[in-house]
Amino acid sequence: MSRQFLAEGPVLSGGDYSIVAVVAVVALAALVVGYFLLKEVLAAGQGTEKMQEIAKAVQEGAAAYLKRQRNTLAIFGVVVFLLLFALPAEDLNERIGRSIFFLVGAGFSFAIGYLGMWLATQANLRVAAASREDGGREKAMRIAFRTGGAVGMATVGLGLFGAAVVVLVYAGQAPKVLEGFGFGAALIAMFMRVGGGIFTKAADVGADLVGKVEQNIPEDDPRNAATIADNVGDNVGDCAGMAADLFESYAVTLVAALILGSVAFGVDGLLFPLIVPAIGVITAVIGVYITKAKVGESGLTTINKAFYISAVISAVLSTIAAFVFLPGTFADFGTEFAATTGNPAVIATLSVIIGIVLAGVILWLTGYFTGTEYKPVKDVGQTSETGAATVILSGLSVGFESAVYTAIVIGGAVFGAYLLGGSVALFAVALAGTGLLTTVGVIVAMDTFGPVSDNAQGIAEMSGDVDEKAAGILTELDAVGNTTKAITKGIAIATAVLAATALFGSYQDSIRQALEGVTGASTDAMKWFVSDIVSPNTLVGVLLGAAVVFLFSGLAINAVSRAAGAVVYEVRRQFRDIPGIMEGTTRPEYGRVVDIVTRDSLRELTTPGLLAVFAPIAVGFGLGTGALAGYLGGAIATGTLMAVFLANSGGAWDNAKKLVEDGNHGGKGSPAHEATVIGDTVGDPFKDTAGPAINPLIKVMNLVSLLIAPAVVQFSIGEDASLGIRLAISLVAVAIIVAAIVVSKRRSTSITDTSNDAEPAKAS
Amino acid sequence: MSRQFLAEGPVLSGGDYSIVAVVAVVALAALVVGYFLLKEVLAAGQGTEKMQEIAKAVQEGAAAYLKRQRNTLAIFGVVVFLLLFALPAEDLNERIGRSIFFLVGAGFSFAIGYLGMWLATQANLRVAAASREDGGREKAMRIAFRTGGAVGMATVGLGLFGAAVVVLVYAGQAPKVLEGFGFGAALIAMFMRVGGGIFTKAADVGADLVGKVEQNIPEDDPRNAATIADNVGDNVGDCAGMAADLFESYAVTLVAALILGSVAFGVDGLLFPLIVPAIGVITAVIGVYITKAKVGESGLTTINKAFYISAVISAVLSTIAAFVFLPGTFADFGTEFAATTGNPAVIATLSVIIGIVLAGVILWLTGYFTGTEYKPVKDVGQTSETGAATVILSGLSVGFESAVYTAIVIGGAVFGAYLLGGSVALFAVALAGTGLLTTVGVIVAMDTFGPVSDNAQGIAEMSGDVDEKAAGILTELDAVGNTTKAITKGIAIATAVLAATALFGSYQDSIRQALEGVTGASTDAMKWFVSDIVSPNTLVGVLLGAAVVFLFSGLAINAVSRAAGAVVYEVRRQFRDIPGIMEGTTRPEYGRVVDIVTRDSLRELTTPGLLAVFAPIAVGFGLGTGALAGYLGGAIATGTLMAVFLANSGGAWDNAKKLVEDGNHGGKGSPAHEATVIGDTVGDPFKDTAGPAINPLIKVMNLVSLLIAPAVVQFSIGEDASLGIRLAISLVAVAIIVAAIVVSKRRSTSITDTSNDAEPAKAS
Repeated sequence: MSRQFLAEGPVLSGGDYSIVAVVAVVALAALVVGYFLLKEVLAAGQGTEKMQEIAKAVQEGAAAYLKRQRNTLAIFGVVVFLLLFALPAEDLNERIGRSIFFLVGAGFSFAIGYLGMWLATQANLRVAAASREDGGREKAMRIAFRTGGAVGMATVGLGLFGAAVVVLVYAGQAPKVLEGFGFGAALIAMFMRVGGGIFTKAADVGADLVGKVEQNIPEDDPRNAATIADNVGDNVGDCAGMAADLFESYAVTLVAALILGSVAFGVDGLLFPLIVPAIGVITAVIGVYITKAKVGESGLTTINKAFYISAVISAVLSTIAAFVFLPGTFADFGTEFAATTGNPAVIATLSVIIGIVLAGVILWLTGYFTGTEYKPVKDVGQTSETGAATVILSGLSVGFESAVYTAIVIGGAVFGAYLLGGSVALFAVALAGTGLLTTVGVIVAMDTFGPVSDNAQGIAEMSGDVDEKAAGILTELDAVGNTTKAITKGIAIATAVLAATALFGSYQDSIRQALEGVTGASTDAMKWFVSDIVSPNTLVGVLLGAAVVFLFSGLAINAVSRAAGAVVYEVRRQFRDIPGIMEGTTRPEYGRVVDIVTRDSLRELTTPGLLAVFAPIAVGFGLGTGALAGYLGGAIATGTLMAVFLANSGGAWDNAKKLVEDGNHGGKGSPAHEATVIGDTVGDPFKDTAGPAINPLIKVMNLVSLLIAPAVVQFSIGEDASLGIRLAISLVAVAIIVAAIVVSKRRSTSITDTSNDAEPAKAS
Repeated sequence: MSRQFLAEGPVLSGGDYSIVAVVAVVALAALVVGYFLLKEVLAAGQGTEKMQEIAKAVQEGAAAYLKRQRNTLAIFGVVVFLLLFALPAEDLNERIGRSIFFLVGAGFSFAIGYLGMWLATQANLRVAAASREDGGREKAMRIAFRTGGAVGMATVGLGLFGAAVVVLVYAGQAPKVLEGFGFGAALIAMFMRVGGGIFTKAADVGADLVGKVEQNIPEDDPRNAATIADNVGDNVGDCAGMAADLFESYAVTLVAALILGSVAFGVDGLLFPLIVPAIGVITAVIGVYITKAKVGESGLTTINKAFYISAVISAVLSTIAAFVFLPGTFADFGTEFAATTGNPAVIATLSVIIGIVLAGVILWLTGYFTGTEYKPVKDVGQTSETGAATVILSGLSVGFESAVYTAIVIGGAVFGAYLLGGSVALFAVALAGTGLLTTVGVIVAMDTFGPVSDNAQGIAEMSGDVDEKAAGILTELDAVGNTTKAITKGIAIATAVLAATALFGSYQDSIRQALEGVTGASTDAMKWFVSDIVSPNTLVGVLLGAAVVFLFSGLAINAVSRAAGAVVYEVRRQFRDIPGIMEGTTRPEYGRVVDIVTRDSLRELTTPGLLAVFAPIAVGFGLGTGALAGYLGGAIATGTLMAVFLANSGGAWDNAKKLVEDGNHGGKGSPAHEATVIGDTVGDPFKDTAGPAINPLIKVMNLVSLLIAPAVVQFSIGEDASLGIRLAISLVAVAIIVAAIVVSKRRSTSITDTSNDAEPAKAS
């Protein structure tokens, strides 16, 4: 087919080409639907002048942060682009495509993040305004959910469009180009998650430490110089970071399915993994439009209903698609897979359904462990009566336990797909991933709901222009948002495991291909490629992979502490140096705090970011591809547990505090409340910085490994073999990581730093 | 050789037989030295009548606990004995030997634990008494360290003697019998670690919550009904549990080295792994006898010196032994290993030295991260000024970071030995383990030092018969003890990784042997045996292995909370119902609290214990040996990080509290002190219950897997293959675990339980 002008390998048949083109059109349609949702949100009323003024400050702060972040990331993007270009490739075509689509993936990821943030700052104000009108609850909820819908449509639309275009243009060479696309998306998403996560929690913790603890003024009080920064943080962390993260989850899972589809069936295998998410687009549109708040129905129930209805529709349509588009026997795919018994359509259908069910189970599990109406959070609330230590211990227990169940459920899904798939096991795992993807549109809508409601509440509180009834509505929406946020994190980590498991297959394939091109290798050199877990080098890799997850988590939590320290000193300084703040006669300088947090979070994201990119390089070139495989396995396993542990302990503490604030165990101001505030503060960097960033971390490390694997083989064995070059590359990578850690440790602004002269100005 | 009457395979040569016999004699000599040290401790003065009375109460409580624990464990031991007997074996000889030596290992483990506990309760009193005499510091320290020396000699003596006897009797069949010996030691040690850990922290946390928090009376105040239980706990947890754990570490590492030695070189390989620990015995004796407290030298320096001196002596003697007892080339060991280049003596020497250096590095790292004089603990102390939340976050960061460095160091040692070893890589790893073992005698002495000093301080405080100078001496010794305790945990986890890595080799070997006996297996069935980490089933195994570590930690922490709740209610009841306690005119009923904690901790140890034994059975029979290998890898990696993380965060919080109590950041009674008390309470179950129990957990799971591997193969493939039987076994194992978790969740006594009517009796 002449239209597949760049494809040098096998091309798509005419019928298949048309189907992929239809998928691309469906993806564009999703963008159009998103545009209409966006229009609807923007058309809503904008409330009082005071509210608009506050919203404007938040909008400006958020835009300024993302602009500076874009500049930082652009430099990084260019460097990686060049490195990527230098890596071995089959031909120039592949080399160029991979690098170009790396930029496309990165650009899409950033664009989605920017859109999510920008629209959220517009929607906050409108949700707050709507809450003041008649039927405010339904109107406010509709705006919040439609905002999420717009971002969700953009996420699935861009993800699917990008992948479909790659397939249309590159056909048989698509998998290698898709690696670049996925890597770009994951890399930028990781930086946005980490940077945004540090921003939002540094501002939040800093504001709380000076405001609530030292000066005893309420949250979101306009006298606190960190208030605007706190609200900006919600947008750059929970909206921009989250949207980019979910886009990345979508893109990488899709990429993994396409790669595995092509490994298993050649170009024909590229079809079905595109059809399933296209179905997801249709059902997401249905899900968003059927979500209507009803009087007397909890907001969470409304949202959950939308999820379950669209999940069922996805399952039905995917089944039909499987029987229409897949042949009756595996024999049709060639002799290699002829040994596999069973009907491909049945296997594919069941795999996709495994993914959809997995999403539902995680939704339920997370809701159970972090919702205020269930036993775990109630138990944590109860322990507040014996003090902060028991709150911390019980919250940690909830986190440990929920992580275990989530891991078992995810493991079960992988194993189920593996058993189903027989000799196409990895493809089945990837298809389960695409099943999970059909729910992403609704999931993004659910997630965006959280920060938008949270910020609407902030704007209402600061403006003072919202009455008690409206405030009640916003509080309800905020609590719902807390749980939906936790759910998204669970789904995101599930996509990470499925995508990573599937990518493992292409990792091995890539090494096998590279090894085939080598002649005259000694058996001694082969030990670098053993990825059998009983081999000490693989086991050391597993240990290092687990260690990186611990290090990354520790670094992210530490970065929040340091950046929060800077906020504390600045707010204290303003209280001391600017007369009239406490009396409310002078406005604090909000912009300075926003500037400080912007600077610090961009500086702090470097170390964990470099760790994610360079650790696999250090392990791969230093210890070989066997150890690197172990490293990825260790990182996936420990990362999954750590991510869920951090997200759910944090969620449980947050909602236990809400329980106490609702009047249980002594209510606001009681010792029990103080104990839960301590729990919530500990949980802040857990659930919003370290936890959610582990998901893109896993994918970035997987894709880096996949990309460097052929180069590692090249320098390990055959005529280019050179221990010197390998060790040199590894040592440079180690040196970069060590230098980054040392620099971040040397940073002077810290919560613990007393050399700074800004002592607390004690309030009366 | 007729003397090796039970050996049916190859036997030892006459010269080798004599050498092993000499090793057995050295082991017996260690026991004799231990006896003399014990005599010396018992000969010391016993102080005032009041002190003796208190010590007697502690002795009785501890003895009563261990007696009841022995009865519980005996039942468990018999059941496991029978299961073990039923597992496949090569012949009756092996079957009987394995089961009998399982009992011997279990008995030794319990005996060492009992000795450690009994001698500590004797020594506490004598250390407290010595502190009152002239030159009290030196005398007290001498008694405390000699106590540890006696336990250390018993540990290495029994471990080495047991292993040497197995080799003498079984020769070529020794490896299989040693699996039983190691399993018995590890299983009982795990139960003693978990049970003792729950006991000590339930009593400690319970005593603190009512005493310090509610009634505002000092620690170890005789009016607190939980005081005696708290002191009993130190002995059953830190002494009995720790001694059994270190014995187990010693035995299992030695077993792994012997198994690997025999895999690599046949019976000849059994020699060197016995010689190295025999050298360790000699150097431990030197280490214990050269430790003499000097005026003006910190206690930690004195102890560290003893460690480093004996480490150097071990290294020198091991090198000599390697060149004397190992042949010049590998060719001598047969053609299989002829490909390996390099001098065996050099490889062995370097491997042993890697192990010794590893012990030294861990000693230093742990000291750095948990010692009051270094930056990490100082930083945690500093964060106490901004409240409990920042103390928790900074302590967690210290834990994360130190875990990463420790994991990298351990990983480096494994990788170093692996590279050195070439085709005998696993044996080299095991030899590094024996290098580590040469330091165990001194390590046990160091560790026992901690609880003995802690208890001496308790007895002094409760009796009121110790003046200020003597109290100061005991406080200094207690602080040193805190750090030595943390160091032991680091060393113990390092032995776990080395032993587990080495045992992995025999796991694979065992599966290979089992597979060789099978004919006519389909290739489809082979997927159960793949342990390549890129295979989904292995990866799912890794995920489940990591999950079990999280679950085990959560269960252990929860168990402490529940048991501490029961203590709180009982102490509150006594304050309320028994008049005159608060005034000091009536004695509280100490015995009732001891009974309650005894009952609860024995009940609570069941769930984590069953998890450790049955989880590998569920995974192995359910998902196959490939998944089981992944499971072990995941458990080793995550377990290592989690164990160090928990131990070091706990240690850092404990010493940060000590820093504040020494007058920093406001001193005792300040808000900073309150913040660090919260940190310390969170850290209690971290560092003394969950953290240290992970070490025996890893080994128990490894040995269970090793033992069941042939049975899994038998039911997976060949004529006995039966998916039904496999699933049935797996489901029974899962059912046992689930039932245990459900039962423990249903337990009514809990810190959070308000149905209990024993409300706090508010003090004036």
